[in-house]
Amino acid sequence: MNNYNQLIKYFEQELDKQNFSGQPAELYEPITYTLGFGGKRIRPVLTLMACELFSGVAATAIPQAIAIELFHNFTLIHDDIMDNAPIRRGKKTVYKKWNSNIAILSGDTLFALAYQYAQQADKEIVHNILGVFNQTAIEVCEGQQFDLNYETNNLVSVDDYINMIRLKTGVLFGASLKIGALIGGASVAEANNLYHFGVNIGLGFQLKDDLLDTFGDEKIFGKKTGGDIITNKKTFLYLKAIECSNQETRAELMALYNANDYDPKEKIKRVKDIFGQLNIDFLTSEEIEKYYIKGMDYLNLIDIDEDNKEILKDIASKMILRDK
Amino acid sequence: MNNYNQLIKYFEQELDKQNFSGQPAELYEPITYTLGFGGKRIRPVLTLMACELFSGVAATAIPQAIAIELFHNFTLIHDDIMDNAPIRRGKKTVYKKWNSNIAILSGDTLFALAYQYAQQADKEIVHNILGVFNQTAIEVCEGQQFDLNYETNNLVSVDDYINMIRLKTGVLFGASLKIGALIGGASVAEANNLYHFGVNIGLGFQLKDDLLDTFGDEKIFGKKTGGDIITNKKTFLYLKAIECSNQETRAELMALYNANDYDPKEKIKRVKDIFGQLNIDFLTSEEIEKYYIKGMDYLNLIDIDEDNKEILKDIASKMILRDK
Repeated sequence: MNNYNQLIKYFEQELDKQNFSGQPAELYEPITYTLGFGGKRIRPVLTLMACELFSGVAATAIPQAIAIELFHNFTLIHDDIMDNAPIRRGKKTVYKKWNSNIAILSGDTLFALAYQYAQQADKEIVHNILGVFNQTAIEVCEGQQFDLNYETNNLVSVDDYINMIRLKTGVLFGASLKIGALIGGASVAEANNLYHFGVNIGLGFQLKDDLLDTFGDEKIFGKKTGGDIITNKKTFLYLKAIECSNQETRAELMALYNANDYDPKEKIKRVKDIFGQLNIDFLTSEEIEKYYIKGMDYLNLIDIDEDNKEILKDIASKMILRDK
Repeated sequence: MNNYNQLIKYFEQELDKQNFSGQPAELYEPITYTLGFGGKRIRPVLTLMACELFSGVAATAIPQAIAIELFHNFTLIHDDIMDNAPIRRGKKTVYKKWNSNIAILSGDTLFALAYQYAQQADKEIVHNILGVFNQTAIEVCEGQQFDLNYETNNLVSVDDYINMIRLKTGVLFGASLKIGALIGGASVAEANNLYHFGVNIGLGFQLKDDLLDTFGDEKIFGKKTGGDIITNKKTFLYLKAIECSNQETRAELMALYNANDYDPKEKIKRVKDIFGQLNIDFLTSEEIEKYYIKGMDYLNLIDIDEDNKEILKDIASKMILRDK
């Protein structure tokens, strides 16, 4: 079976062969621009990997791998409008480079294009594939809406947050694997186990993102830490700290997150001090490990060759044990 | 075969049975709210009618009729953001009642829900159905982008405009019929003829909208005329007037449409006077008739019972010969 790096290369080659140009240019240029950002291509690689796992061939799942990547990019274009995010991967986001209207509409087009690829499956499984794809698309929207709601809600719990990232990030990891598995000929039971493996790894992946944003080593992480603290983002770290702090510390933490007039450096330092006292970095690592183990439990339910299982374990480790 | 009014009633009953509630409420309330606006439900009725035309039963096409209506409502929610339209059918639009982020995201969800319904077709035809649905979705986005581009472009021709409304309005009328026909068992050739009938009727429908907005009888039309003139909308009427006016009149018309400091009543009066001198109302009616006849030519290519043909002719007349 191909490993992660081989499949990224293969996916990039196949993506490059697609033609996303058209008229009016204002609609199609942002699509090519966004797809050109690159990125880790984790999701489509998971689709190819799952297909190869059951059929020995990754190629059959290329249309769905592309569909997943197009869908993911559609969510990025729309999310960047909603989050007022001017920069992604060092480049201007679509709404910033063009405008919000163009970002809405080129996102919509990308969503339709994603479906155009998703449906390119054998008639015996196309309903299954699209069922997963639809359900996931809806859940990702739900996750983003919860995320927006939580910005102005001071009563969010750790459980609320986990459910939100499950919807916003986890289910697409799960669906990427499940769709690939179904195309590769997996039974629904096997595909579902792989789905739950993916959801849990996706949760771990997002929690690792939260952890690195505050406690990452800037030299390895490649960017400044503390971004989530500055933008008052209620990540797992903050919510866990709220949950396990005493009244006084909780009040200080909430004050720090409800005001914008702190010196950024001092604010980051003070919040990190509080997190440190409460052992939040350790508790977050423990939570990540919990999802990693849960994911592995689901993987072990699937009757596949040990060598192939290793490749999946390897990608899960890469996503969860990474330092950047 | 059922007529238009019978099928609207049937469609409304079936739509009412669907459940579009869910969590978070911010995502689902705007969907129920928008679907509750009502409207003419022309597109889903066309789907049901086309299905009944070939199979004798409308019910088989209910999922796709709902898909078409959900898709249409998704475009309304997003278009209203882009067009800064605060009111639709006498009610606040979604972005105005909630906010733009909620409008973007509930629109996206509606789009995904539309696909969830669209795919509920027999495996032998599901690829055909989704092919039409995807292609149409992409073209409607293209049409909206052309429309946005034309707002700030002074070199738009009548042909550009016709192409824009074909994409923005025509193709969805065509697709509504084609999808219904395919579900009803029509051959691809028959379904295509019905598609072209629909596109042409859609063009006539939109041109009639343009005509009524300026020359409608306010008592029958039910709202003030002149809205397109006040908002400097480059409709068929304006573009035709630019095309067939002399240099002096063209300059005056362009000046009227490039400034916002005219008294609204006087501006409407002056523009209508110019349109009147240039016979624009007559020329528009002629153009509408051209598309009506083209539509009928396609309808006549289809080998169906004359009584059924009459029902389709009747709906085409209603859409094109209407006074409101």
